[in-house]
Amino acid sequence: MSRLIETIDLNSDLGEGFGRWELGDDEALLAIVTSANVACGFHAGDPTIMRRTCETAVARGVEIGAQVGYRDLAGFGRRFIEVPPEDLADEIIYQIGALDAFARLAGGRVGYVKPHGALYNAIVHHEVQAAAVVAAVRAYDPGLPVLGLPGSAWLRIAEAAGLTPIAEFFADRAYTPEGTLVPRGLPGAVLHDPEAVARRCLRLVQGEPVEAVDGTPLRVRAASICVHGDSPNPVPMARRVRETLAEAGCRVAPFVSHVRNG
Amino acid sequence: MSRLIETIDLNSDLGEGFGRWELGDDEALLAIVTSANVACGFHAGDPTIMRRTCETAVARGVEIGAQVGYRDLAGFGRRFIEVPPEDLADEIIYQIGALDAFARLAGGRVGYVKPHGALYNAIVHHEVQAAAVVAAVRAYDPGLPVLGLPGSAWLRIAEAAGLTPIAEFFADRAYTPEGTLVPRGLPGAVLHDPEAVARRCLRLVQGEPVEAVDGTPLRVRAASICVHGDSPNPVPMARRVRETLAEAGCRVAPFVSHVRNG
Amino acid sequence: MSRLIETIDLNSDLGEGFGRWELGDDEALLAIVTSANVACGFHAGDPTIMRRTCETAVARGVEIGAQVGYRDLAGFGRRFIEVPPEDLADEIIYQIGALDAFARLAGGRVGYVKPHGALYNAIVHHEVQAAAVVAAVRAYDPGLPVLGLPGSAWLRIAEAAGLTPIAEFFADRAYTPEGTLVPRGLPGAVLHDPEAVARRCLRLVQGEPVEAVDGTPLRVRAASICVHGDSPNPVPMARRVRETLAEAGCRVAPFVSHVRNG
Amino acid sequence: MSRLIETIDLNSDLGEGFGRWELGDDEALLAIVTSANVACGFHAGDPTIMRRTCETAVARGVEIGAQVGYRDLAGFGRRFIEVPPEDLADEIIYQIGALDAFARLAGGRVGYVKPHGALYNAIVHHEVQAAAVVAAVRAYDPGLPVLGLPGSAWLRIAEAAGLTPIAEFFADRAYTPEGTLVPRGLPGAVLHDPEAVARRCLRLVQGEPVEAVDGTPLRVRAASICVHGDSPNPVPMARRVRETLAEAGCRVAPFVSHVRNG
Repeated sequence: MSRLIETIDLNSDLGEGFGRWELGDDEALLAIVTSANVACGFHAGDPTIMRRTCETAVARGVEIGAQVGYRDLAGFGRRFIEVPPEDLADEIIYQIGALDAFARLAGGRVGYVKPHGALYNAIVHHEVQAAAVVAAVRAYDPGLPVLGLPGSAWLRIAEAAGLTPIAEFFADRAYTPEGTLVPRGLPGAVLHDPEAVARRCLRLVQGEPVEAVDGTPLRVRAASICVHGDSPNPVPMARRVRETLAEAGCRVAPFVSHVRNG
Repeated sequence: MSRLIETIDLNSDLGEGFGRWELGDDEALLAIVTSANVACGFHAGDPTIMRRTCETAVARGVEIGAQVGYRDLAGFGRRFIEVPPEDLADEIIYQIGALDAFARLAGGRVGYVKPHGALYNAIVHHEVQAAAVVAAVRAYDPGLPVLGLPGSAWLRIAEAAGLTPIAEFFADRAYTPEGTLVPRGLPGAVLHDPEAVARRCLRLVQGEPVEAVDGTPLRVRAASICVHGDSPNPVPMARRVRETLAEAGCRVAPFVSHVRNG
Repeated sequence: MSRLIETIDLNSDLGEGFGRWELGDDEALLAIVTSANVACGFHAGDPTIMRRTCETAVARGVEIGAQVGYRDLAGFGRRFIEVPPEDLADEIIYQIGALDAFARLAGGRVGYVKPHGALYNAIVHHEVQAAAVVAAVRAYDPGLPVLGLPGSAWLRIAEAAGLTPIAEFFADRAYTPEGTLVPRGLPGAVLHDPEAVARRCLRLVQGEPVEAVDGTPLRVRAASICVHGDSPNPVPMARRVRETLAEAGCRVAPFVSHVRNG
Repeated sequence: MSRLIETIDLNSDLGEGFGRWELGDDEALLAIVTSANVACGFHAGDPTIMRRTCETAVARGVEIGAQVGYRDLAGFGRRFIEVPPEDLADEIIYQIGALDAFARLAGGRVGYVKPHGALYNAIVHHEVQAAAVVAAVRAYDPGLPVLGLPGSAWLRIAEAAGLTPIAEFFADRAYTPEGTLVPRGLPGAVLHDPEAVARRCLRLVQGEPVEAVDGTPLRVRAASICVHGDSPNPVPMARRVRETLAEAGCRVAPFVSHVRNG
């Protein structure tokens, strides 16, 4: 029988502007989500954006995660780069260290790590790069949980290395019957209706199967829901997800505190 | 009557390569100096170089300092940039935080801050930028000493803000009768003879006046000597300075331990 | 007695996004203006944006100008950098050459040069940098007109070097009684009412004085009007300016063709 | 029966410094080679280095080629990047255009295109990226020959598109019996003895087989020899190659003039 997940985390990519260029409505999202994946300056973000995002996150009780990525501002971290693993590990440590300075200044700390874009996608399968990112997190702080795709090499290698793997569910992305994401660009890959998105998040926390793109019922386990997102208008969708979960009696809170308490 | 300074620090700029490009003989210098000003990736240095430099520094008991600079790889941080003070402070915090990650990984920590190049020169007089860098250091860790030019706005504002200012002497740079550096490019600005350079360093630690470029005897007080440097061949010069000081009975050791012990 | 200027140019900054980050409504502005100052990748813009902007500009008969700036993506070219003049000249040549490749590919060519941001402001007075940019334009193509502030060192040195200086009027910026711009940040520096902005542009082309910020009538001569702009909503303002001028019988056309015909 | 190739080209990577960082002895190599692959600022090189390298090349009658690469200064263009083909083509056009500005200023022009590093290696097999670079060269100037590995997708697609493909031989790299390069890192991959290197270049121009790494005689056809190079000391090797070929009566001259005349 299905059972309500008592606590769920909502995570979102934040702080993804650069200098003059803004991206997304960080203010609005920081009032909704419970975990902020903050870009660290290699594919997006800059020191001032990082400081401000950390300040607002701490003020609102939102957990700060290091959104680490390839060194590729021109490509927004969305292009796979064959970085040698030692260099990749060093680049990850650099990014976490830089963000942690701002997190601590704001009265918080980096609470978890979530790779971004092409790196996120690569380490679903690319074991050498996955192991490099795992090694970087362990070297920085083996107590840091890592967020990612259920079944990925990233979470598997992280767990084997003693890190705490946290699986996430994508609120607005369609899933294949095998439980992987329908690639962007294919029809139906991204869901646009906030109500429909909120309903499947509700099913998730109620322990009920979520429909795959072809209707197959899919068992998904996740401690965090990524609410941003590929929809052109992520704020109302994120808000609707949060309201729906709260109305159903599910506590929305950072997974980090949950992991630590549990 | 003159009196021997019992302990002196030798500092040098290190880790100033970038990716494929190398600069300087870090291995050799890390066997001579006691404080390493390690570039943090904004004007020079990259994550892998930072990690390696920190590892070698800690292995040899060399103190690690954050060599912070303008965000200007193309100009090696040698071009003044009118960065707004809030942005500058954030950029400094970012750099210290990133380096500190590698310093701690190596078993050490960032022990002091020394601005680089055009930033170093700017904050001799530019009080707004000087105050911004001071604010950044204080925000990161008010216990961090700061290294710089005696009489500079940088050291003055740092001291007024409660930081520990450390004055440095440039081993191979000529001084004006007023105690400022003879600008590079002017005749005699840079000293090339290791013996002559070593002799004036010896006078410094013996509490005797150092000759200005016109022969005027100059009283200089400094807890650290910068041995690198503008000479084309800094290693033999640094080695000769260290040998000369050691032979005279002066202990060569990181100023940071000295400051903390004292 | 006042006299209608028969032809006026409208110029705007365009192609100022970078990678994932967009800025401004280039499509809309390219339907209104007659000269496009296209960013060249050093402070904004990237190869793909440059190609697309050139293609659209040529398709619509909009002249392409090189919007050259400091190498400073993080600062959007808005921070003065003390670049040595030889390096600055080389950086300008690089930018013009790169843009010209896309302009020619689209069937056009770079028709003029307009410095951006902090470089624009610096070379109002900074003669060394002004001369460097002039030298770069001359080296690339002495037939290229240059666009800038009336009375600036930039236009003066350009003219003395044999280049064609083109003075521009800022549609939405208040002027001091001396004919300089009221600095941003001061009250009233930026005009927000499209009707008021259009009316003063009309007075300009009618040869009538424009009101300075304190009401002083000001004689301004300009062959181009910059319609973008510091207003938060530049498209309606630019459109209103163009309509107003056209209704008054003023031909709106690229100054480049005008200069060449004249 | 074997027959002397009457004219051979020697090409080398040049202008690969960046800002403060130097790489290689460009002055010396420009006195030896006949074609200079000049880095264009995306993986190495900067505007000032490009200008100087073009000036010296033209002064010495050395042909200028565009050494185009991925946008990756931190990785020196040696890391594969999954750039979408449209973006890659635009980046190549940008680089050629920028270099051409300096080549023309110096009295020459870009005479050919040779991809660098990871891009060079990728387009041996990666047909999508190979086609993108071919499209870029065609768009810029379909008369530009392209330099690369015999049998590569790059040269094959270029030829099919109407470009002139030029095959090159690596003076100091060992070949497999199949005619591909022994990967760097494997034993014997790089030849270090200038005499041995010069002898196999001589065999090449005499139309005799070159020994593969296992001794298999290998027929190689190439109009250009790359003399730089992975040897730690490329200048004496390049010089020895040139002397040996000249002594044998082979004319050493840019392939570009050869291709155009032929």
